[in-house]
Amino acid sequence: MKNRVITISREFGSGGRTIGKRVAAQLGIPCYDNELLQKTAEESGFQQEYIKEAGEYSLGGLLSNAFSHRGSAMNNADYLWQIQYRIITQLAEKGPCVIVGRCADYILRDKADCLRVFIHADIKFRAERIVREYGERTESPEQRIKDKDKRRAAYHRFYTDMKWGHAQNYDLTLNSGTLGLDKCVEIIKSLY
Amino acid sequence: MKNRVITISREFGSGGRTIGKRVAAQLGIPCYDNELLQKTAEESGFQQEYIKEAGEYSLGGLLSNAFSHRGSAMNNADYLWQIQYRIITQLAEKGPCVIVGRCADYILRDKADCLRVFIHADIKFRAERIVREYGERTESPEQRIKDKDKRRAAYHRFYTDMKWGHAQNYDLTLNSGTLGLDKCVEIIKSLY
Repeated sequence: MKNRVITISREFGSGGRTIGKRVAAQLGIPCYDNELLQKTAEESGFQQEYIKEAGEYSLGGLLSNAFSHRGSAMNNADYLWQIQYRIITQLAEKGPCVIVGRCADYILRDKADCLRVFIHADIKFRAERIVREYGERTESPEQRIKDKDKRRAAYHRFYTDMKWGHAQNYDLTLNSGTLGLDKCVEIIKSLY
Repeated sequence: MKNRVITISREFGSGGRTIGKRVAAQLGIPCYDNELLQKTAEESGFQQEYIKEAGEYSLGGLLSNAFSHRGSAMNNADYLWQIQYRIITQLAEKGPCVIVGRCADYILRDKADCLRVFIHADIKFRAERIVREYGERTESPEQRIKDKDKRRAAYHRFYTDMKWGHAQNYDLTLNSGTLGLDKCVEIIKSLY
């Protein structure tokens, strides 16, 4: 019997991580996000800050090699992908949990009984939210969002060949801007 | 105060229409689908069977004129689009309701307080379902599904310039194949 796992993909600033944490807390199961980073860091020897960035935003193999002209078939991003792949698989085997980001939906597609969720919201909602949550930066919040989304989508596409944000890839997608974070938590919980 | 309207877009065979009807019945509000066709038929003078097809699958103006070499700026599909546009607007002004298909989400975007839903399911689920619901045809169910989806997406794109099935266009999208029709009904109701 495969474990029941909730995977949450999310647009930057949509509150997907917060929703995942609340769902997990209310269901009494673990939520893996920073923990995942820590484990990856321990295994790989990379700095956590580097992983946070590269583990979801960098492209491996072909693309980066084409640009860097390095001969190696595997670069840091590919190496991290393999470690994350193994850790996510192990976590899902350990028991029911929530996993935020990191292409867990794809990695676990045949390995767990997944509820695949995608959280999104319009740019205005997200811009206000990231300034409130993460503070001001030199770059405008809209620019930060566009940049992050673009890189997440490219990363997802590169490693999974699935289109990020296409309804057909998920069991449900929720607009946290129009529905509210609490309602999203409630719906996901009701499907567990 | 704008009326609360639930619009349901759906992949062919996903059960979106059934879900819409059940939601409406349980909420005690009308569901417009065949009624809408009848009204359009009455107004336009077209046969209902023709409208059922053209009203959601035919492309108007530029494209068809390019192929037909007719000089007219408006063809039958454009004419139908205008009538459907007006009827959907009037229905939404009359009171809360569920509207299935016909780009109602786009038409009502500034005119009603919409809950925009998209229902989809994998091809196996839908193939079994359409044979059960609509019977066997000469064409394989998979071929029927591909053909209908393709035309619905093209129609939607042509008249709305929105991408059909992109999570970002909806408040929620639900996979009726993995969640089940009853659960979809329950979630939509809980958001009304």
